[in-house]
Amino acid sequence: MRINDEYGKLPGSYLFAETARRLKVYQAEHPDADIIRLGIGDVTMPLVPAVISAMHIAVDEMGKKETFRGYGPDYGYDFLVNAIRENDYQPYGIELDYDEVFISDGAKCDVGNIQELFSPDAVIAVTDPVYPVYVDSNAMAGRAGDFLDGKWDRLVYLPCNAENGFVPELPSEHVDVLYLCYPNNPTGTVLTKAQLKVFVDWARENDALIIYDAAYKAFITETGIPHSIYEVAGAKEVAIECCSYSKTAGFTGTRCAYMIVPHEVQGLNSKGERVELNAMWKRRMSTKFNGVSYPVQRAAAAIYTPEGKKQVQEVIQAYLENARVIHDGLISRGIEVYGGINSPYIWMKVPGNMDSWTFFDRLMDKSHVVGTPGAGFGPSGEGYFRLTAFNSLEATKEAVRRFDACLL
Amino acid sequence: MRINDEYGKLPGSYLFAETARRLKVYQAEHPDADIIRLGIGDVTMPLVPAVISAMHIAVDEMGKKETFRGYGPDYGYDFLVNAIRENDYQPYGIELDYDEVFISDGAKCDVGNIQELFSPDAVIAVTDPVYPVYVDSNAMAGRAGDFLDGKWDRLVYLPCNAENGFVPELPSEHVDVLYLCYPNNPTGTVLTKAQLKVFVDWARENDALIIYDAAYKAFITETGIPHSIYEVAGAKEVAIECCSYSKTAGFTGTRCAYMIVPHEVQGLNSKGERVELNAMWKRRMSTKFNGVSYPVQRAAAAIYTPEGKKQVQEVIQAYLENARVIHDGLISRGIEVYGGINSPYIWMKVPGNMDSWTFFDRLMDKSHVVGTPGAGFGPSGEGYFRLTAFNSLEATKEAVRRFDACLL
Repeated sequence: MRINDEYGKLPGSYLFAETARRLKVYQAEHPDADIIRLGIGDVTMPLVPAVISAMHIAVDEMGKKETFRGYGPDYGYDFLVNAIRENDYQPYGIELDYDEVFISDGAKCDVGNIQELFSPDAVIAVTDPVYPVYVDSNAMAGRAGDFLDGKWDRLVYLPCNAENGFVPELPSEHVDVLYLCYPNNPTGTVLTKAQLKVFVDWARENDALIIYDAAYKAFITETGIPHSIYEVAGAKEVAIECCSYSKTAGFTGTRCAYMIVPHEVQGLNSKGERVELNAMWKRRMSTKFNGVSYPVQRAAAAIYTPEGKKQVQEVIQAYLENARVIHDGLISRGIEVYGGINSPYIWMKVPGNMDSWTFFDRLMDKSHVVGTPGAGFGPSGEGYFRLTAFNSLEATKEAVRRFDACLL
Repeated sequence: MRINDEYGKLPGSYLFAETARRLKVYQAEHPDADIIRLGIGDVTMPLVPAVISAMHIAVDEMGKKETFRGYGPDYGYDFLVNAIRENDYQPYGIELDYDEVFISDGAKCDVGNIQELFSPDAVIAVTDPVYPVYVDSNAMAGRAGDFLDGKWDRLVYLPCNAENGFVPELPSEHVDVLYLCYPNNPTGTVLTKAQLKVFVDWARENDALIIYDAAYKAFITETGIPHSIYEVAGAKEVAIECCSYSKTAGFTGTRCAYMIVPHEVQGLNSKGERVELNAMWKRRMSTKFNGVSYPVQRAAAAIYTPEGKKQVQEVIQAYLENARVIHDGLISRGIEVYGGINSPYIWMKVPGNMDSWTFFDRLMDKSHVVGTPGAGFGPSGEGYFRLTAFNSLEATKEAVRRFDACLL
């Protein structure tokens, strides 16, 4: 039985599996170490009462013949699809058709699976550093080429660093698909509407597709930062947008997300004919997916009720306060810091000439604080380190204090 | 932006989308028709009390800081993985390693995604008729060739029909991967352990992989019919097995399943090296999936408690009684019938010389009963028709009575 060779080209473990492995080894050797995790982007605050209540009601419905639900609609229940259209888009002046919204069990699945619609020859561009799923999912399908000297040789990397203010340059070569994530994971930086417009205009002029990952939009605090790429005129012709309840409402263990695939977005087949990606995605979803758990969709819809909105906003504000504590605390310690204002992520410059994995080990050993090495997010991540705002306020304050031990 | 051309080769809609579309048109024209659905394989009885209770407890845990769960283990929680090993395998003398069990949100996803591990050149064999997902997921990846005269020209079809007793012949050409589903969807037929051993031995001799879909194993009533392919000696070296809670416990709207990928199963890369599929599947799942909802995993685990087992068994017995009613009722009407004994599916020969889509329309029009045309499951399905046992006993009895109107 012949296997897909591309898997053999993937370097080492998936980033978070490797940081978890190192932590496990460290804890086995230092069982008394009181570790504070500012690493993986997992939330810590419980689901809000409005969500819990909606889930209980839905579970009871599943236990009664009259209200039991079997297979749901492949692309999601109308109560959730419409709540998304009315709450996440109409307030920004964006009108979406009912069948442009696809409910899924996670943005990781959506951004991992969307590449199935691209030609095997499609040229992929990513910002660098980058969420590893965009890269790995394309590498598994053979679009990344070979991994040589820390880079995939068929992938187009757009460096984002302190020098360019974390705003990538436009690709200089032909590109079929560009992945953008704003507020950015891992850097926590944002694009203004004017900066995002440059990419939309480029995609329109060059027949390119933008996969826009807006998983962190709930953390935007400043005005002038788009919550959706469709705020930019013309974006509906060139962009697919992914959103998630994981960070918005603490759904990392509950699992719900959605993706917008406008009818206007088209690709070219090898005969040069234009094809709607919406129709392709429908085919993909109805063939390889069977909908999201009914109680989970009810849980997600509860976020859009007046109580739900208020309760979720309190949680977001708490995480943003943690982000501020890290941001301000590291700056006061003389560290260069980015992100953390419209994002739960803080991207710090590694002090001295240490590489980011060395700093990971050192921070764990000296301060008992776990973060994520920038190099794990791509070549331009080297020299940087990601911290997250998802721990408790006390633990976050303590972690910042402990940086002194690591910096000495 | 260049798209994946293979999608353009897929014929028409996904089968159940097409039957649903025809039903919708019919209902619009005949709003008073009292339709009985014996079509899509969706359950109708509610989740059992043990499952409901476990889900409520898990939902409450998600609402409290102390017991909240964020990202779960990528491959499933230990409480569910171990319940599967101890209840679904050890009683049959099968020992599985902890990391050979992968929890997912559906067997449709698993059997749709597993082909990502195969070489683009791999030769795929399916029994015919067949659950469309095996075919379509490989077609989307370019392994099926072109769809000509109702067949994919690179796919190997193994006909199953009344003439061969629904036991497929071994492939006569080289095959990398064979999909088998027993109890079978759509025919409801089974293989004895001796019949299944022929395929395991063939796979071992020919370096082939078997994807064994055991989604309907809970319906096995006769002795000598394997509940798992691993009951056959040597199968752990050549088989991946998919199982689902959809039909076992009414989880079609709740979403939970599992797949077994033994360490012994290996494939060949293009250098001729042997590679563990278990390691590849781990990489796939940790890159493009984020685990199943925690309350849903608790719900699934409740099926293995003493009360859960008893309650689920009562539901299964009720569906099997429906199957018996259809089976015996059609036979008494002179119709040739297969399946329905170890399966919720009844596979009937279409009376006269009608094709199966014509019979679909006729049964809907004359009897107001909806089934699934055999031709939708592959070329050898033509001339047959699938009925399912998932409606209520009364509706099932009434549907069988109504066949008279269609047969006249």
